Amino acid sequence: MNLEPGNIDTTASRISMIGVMLKGYTTPRTPRGISSLAPAPPWHYVSTSLAIEFAADPVKAARFLPQSLEIDPDGRCAVYFAEWQFATDEGEEYLDPVRSQYKEAIFLIGARYRDEQVAYCPFIFVDQDVSLMRGLIQGWPKQFGTVWMTRPSILPSKAAPVEGPGGRFGATLSVRDRRTVEAQVTLRSVTDRRPSPTFARGVNVRYFPDLAAGKHDDPSVHELVQLKSRDVRFSTIWTGEAALKILDHPHLEIADLAPTSVGAGYRFSFAFTVDDVVLLKDLRRSVAVSAT
Amino acid sequence: MNLEPGNIDTTASRISMIGVMLKGYTTPRTPRGISSLAPAPPWHYVSTSLAIEFAADPVKAARFLPQSLEIDPDGRCAVYFAEWQFATDEGEEYLDPVRSQYKEAIFLIGARYRDEQVAYCPFIFVDQDVSLMRGLIQGWPKQFGTVWMTRPSILPSKAAPVEGPGGRFGATLSVRDRRTVEAQVTLRSVTDRRPSPTFARGVNVRYFPDLAAGKHDDPSVHELVQLKSRDVRFSTIWTGEAALKILDHPHLEIADLAPTSVGAGYRFSFAFTVDDVVLLKDLRRSVAVSAT
Amino acid sequence: MNLEPGNIDTTASRISMIGVMLKGYTTPRTPRGISSLAPAPPWHYVSTSLAIEFAADPVKAARFLPQSLEIDPDGRCAVYFAEWQFATDEGEEYLDPVRSQYKEAIFLIGARYRDEQVAYCPFIFVDQDVSLMRGLIQGWPKQFGTVWMTRPSILPSKAAPVEGPGGRFGATLSVRDRRTVEAQVTLRSVTDRRPSPTFARGVNVRYFPDLAAGKHDDPSVHELVQLKSRDVRFSTIWTGEAALKILDHPHLEIADLAPTSVGAGYRFSFAFTVDDVVLLKDLRRSVAVSAT
Amino acid sequence: MNLEPGNIDTTASRISMIGVMLKGYTTPRTPRGISSLAPAPPWHYVSTSLAIEFAADPVKAARFLPQSLEIDPDGRCAVYFAEWQFATDEGEEYLDPVRSQYKEAIFLIGARYRDEQVAYCPFIFVDQDVSLMRGLIQGWPKQFGTVWMTRPSILPSKAAPVEGPGGRFGATLSVRDRRTVEAQVTLRSVTDRRPSPTFARGVNVRYFPDLAAGKHDDPSVHELVQLKSRDVRFSTIWTGEAALKILDHPHLEIADLAPTSVGAGYRFSFAFTVDDVVLLKDLRRSVAVSAT
Repeated sequence: MNLEPGNIDTTASRISMIGVMLKGYTTPRTPRGISSLAPAPPWHYVSTSLAIEFAADPVKAARFLPQSLEIDPDGRCAVYFAEWQFATDEGEEYLDPVRSQYKEAIFLIGARYRDEQVAYCPFIFVDQDVSLMRGLIQGWPKQFGTVWMTRPSILPSKAAPVEGPGGRFGATLSVRDRRTVEAQVTLRSVTDRRPSPTFARGVNVRYFPDLAAGKHDDPSVHELVQLKSRDVRFSTIWTGEAALKILDHPHLEIADLAPTSVGAGYRFSFAFTVDDVVLLKDLRRSVAVSAT
Repeated sequence: MNLEPGNIDTTASRISMIGVMLKGYTTPRTPRGISSLAPAPPWHYVSTSLAIEFAADPVKAARFLPQSLEIDPDGRCAVYFAEWQFATDEGEEYLDPVRSQYKEAIFLIGARYRDEQVAYCPFIFVDQDVSLMRGLIQGWPKQFGTVWMTRPSILPSKAAPVEGPGGRFGATLSVRDRRTVEAQVTLRSVTDRRPSPTFARGVNVRYFPDLAAGKHDDPSVHELVQLKSRDVRFSTIWTGEAALKILDHPHLEIADLAPTSVGAGYRFSFAFTVDDVVLLKDLRRSVAVSAT
Repeated sequence: MNLEPGNIDTTASRISMIGVMLKGYTTPRTPRGISSLAPAPPWHYVSTSLAIEFAADPVKAARFLPQSLEIDPDGRCAVYFAEWQFATDEGEEYLDPVRSQYKEAIFLIGARYRDEQVAYCPFIFVDQDVSLMRGLIQGWPKQFGTVWMTRPSILPSKAAPVEGPGGRFGATLSVRDRRTVEAQVTLRSVTDRRPSPTFARGVNVRYFPDLAAGKHDDPSVHELVQLKSRDVRFSTIWTGEAALKILDHPHLEIADLAPTSVGAGYRFSFAFTVDDVVLLKDLRRSVAVSAT
Repeated sequence: MNLEPGNIDTTASRISMIGVMLKGYTTPRTPRGISSLAPAPPWHYVSTSLAIEFAADPVKAARFLPQSLEIDPDGRCAVYFAEWQFATDEGEEYLDPVRSQYKEAIFLIGARYRDEQVAYCPFIFVDQDVSLMRGLIQGWPKQFGTVWMTRPSILPSKAAPVEGPGGRFGATLSVRDRRTVEAQVTLRSVTDRRPSPTFARGVNVRYFPDLAAGKHDDPSVHELVQLKSRDVRFSTIWTGEAALKILDHPHLEIADLAPTSVGAGYRFSFAFTVDDVVLLKDLRRSVAVSAT
């Protein structure tokens, strides 16, 4: 290329000044917009999940709730393990599954917001960056963890349970090299009941800190939001008895949610689409002050 | 502990001398035998597999065969991608799935051994050490690779194909940071045909080198073996058209098996048990000489 | 625990209402504040780095710049590979290094902002979630990638280069299973020159999208910021000739920055502390409008 | 390609019959021999190591020893953590470091063989398949584990210790999702002493099982061997006080080697070359019988 330097300068800087505009729903934002860590919604999800209902000490669990939420008096909680697959409208990301698959462990605490039952997520662990980014945008407090879940087989084998009466399924979470949660569910029967607390009533906190000096406690984004999903579909739900251990971790307060009792376990698939979230309340101090 | 040193010495060395015996099917062999990388057979396996039949250049493919095998004249090959779950008789390893699950990509070349059709594996890639060890013992030339496979859902979703007509499945292999194989199968119909070449007729080479000076080309173990499995069970087999790319890799000769044509694709589960292998021929030079 | 339900309810909900306050610089925010993915600043960093200066097509490179930046007419760029260690003031995270170590590959484009030379980062890849989160807060467009870098030895060995004349160092980046960048530097001499463009003049875009319906193009945070660091220290800087390949990637526009020429390579360590960032301009449309 | 089938058959099968010969020191053995998981020796290694001397219960430790070894009466043991880099004579594998770098945690028990002091390795953990394979061939009972080690910096920073008096270094091992070993060393002074037991006197067991029915307890290879290395070089050795925890693991007997007392810690580099091993004794039953 032998353009005159002056020409290059003019052309190139005009391009950047005019702002042909960077594209992309998240960073990195680029000329064609195909490099974003998370693509633009709608986001279509399908999971295979193992869920365990349990009760935590309600006084301890209450301390994990953000402003405006009240603890459920019986300390109802649930942990969900899930193998996910994800795609956009036309992306067919599942055909190159490194872009689409991930595993998660999700804790929910039963709570109330303005007299409605909601669920709040104090901890969630995932194994792919794309999912971490989509999660942060929805207010899921994601960080990395390693999740394993038993898979069933329709073939009789000592290597796999049946998805049916007597089938035993394990699920585990490890965080930064340490085993953190161990769960087991033995399926007994089909049920119409979904595990509770449920994602369907999730209230999250979208939070993005500021780093400017003096503003470390004054986040750029601090919003109480209601999750929204559409086109929700559930498979047959299997239920049975469950066991659950939450182990101490030196850099997580997760053992404060250790089960005081363990309820039912569930195995099921569900699918849904996300392209919205509802702002319930701006929790920033400055806003609160000016609003008052 | 305040035993006299002399006593300790006596006791301890007697123990080691008597050889209460180390236990374990593989190293590490230990007092209780529960630490072995691979536990003792029988080994029960169940997989979900995506397989693609293809033809390679038969002259190039022939060069990958060990002594005593002849290439199939039409260069028939197959690549299998599989998500596995494994257990021993009483181990229930699938309940702590980090011990039980792994993914693989397996290449098979159609060949003949003494006028019988067999299959030979030139390359196999896996993501767990336990499986690598069990594989070496059976003569599978395992090394590490990263495998991803599309999962179907019974729920309608843009995030997953159906396991049925029109369902599209991808599978990929990466080896040492480089994408190496990309495959895609579109299901069309159920079939009674199993992909070919097939594991059922696998002939492997068990190989364990010597390191003593002067013996680097004189392996301690060099055996042509016939794989054996029992209690083999197949699920319904779906088939349809396939696409397959084998990409160049600077440290693998795998692109020498690049498809000259691509045949059918298959999706199915199968389960089986392994606790035997049949020695066909000792390939060590010293043995060969003495046998002549 | 046998408290009356009523008591629990009152106590617990009072706790949550009073808002004993969740703590933590980032999510998850918790009662004791020790569970946050990224701890509160200051953040102390030390790296070992390999950097390569190169020129990209300035027209193509210009398209990666955000509003307000103009491309450097000669398309000056650099890629830095780094092995990092991180700690907070009292955290001594490096003693449990899974919390502290990570590797990165960082691209910088030379640019101008209001007649000052600056550097803009179009792509950055990292292998730990904690670093990804700290990065997003500073406007680094981080996503996951796998980085490898040669290490030198002071012992003569065919297994390692010397950090001195003739020492050859490699560095590689892989993203989502695909080799993306390959670099090599042969050290020749010590220099006072630091690679350019340089982190010291980094201008980033802090960006956090909204997900509410109708606001997907209306980010919650969209700020042009000037990076700030303090207590910056450099080791001896080695320099020499370099080679660099940027390979096509189907989901990254990184090959648009492929080198048209490759300049010098560098190897050095540097350390610094971050606890501030300077807002240059709020890029949100709504703000721009109201500010006009 | 339109050759006649008959021609292909003849040509190709002649090639395989003549046996142009598969090449490669380990599987996979291929036409050009460049695909082997482990390349042919000599193998050049260089490491940065953190070692901790400790005493285990000698009665328990004795039970880990193979036939012919006697426990050291004082139960002397050591654990070594190491970051390795590897290359062959001409391979320069360190320039594509995914092929060359790996991390390990190695346990040694002090023992006697025919009145000579030796060291026996009951457990060793590594994070790369290539190293696992080279290890098995030398009799190292390798399996996968995740190792992290603090790195020093010559720059003053809260993010790194100095390699000098007062410098504190951590090292950790996790195996199959569970933290298994935590160690810490505070450097105090330079020493001429190398940690003990030492690799230099390593006695290993080369072991490769048979899988043929009836032969599961009758290994194909079962050899007591003396490790050999040449061109061994040590850096300056730093020493100081150490802390060490070995945690319970459900699938490892490693906690049977828990320290009854912890001795000195060491930090150093060493380099060496391996292309030999010395057979001390064939431990196979059949051989023992026939030899008697």
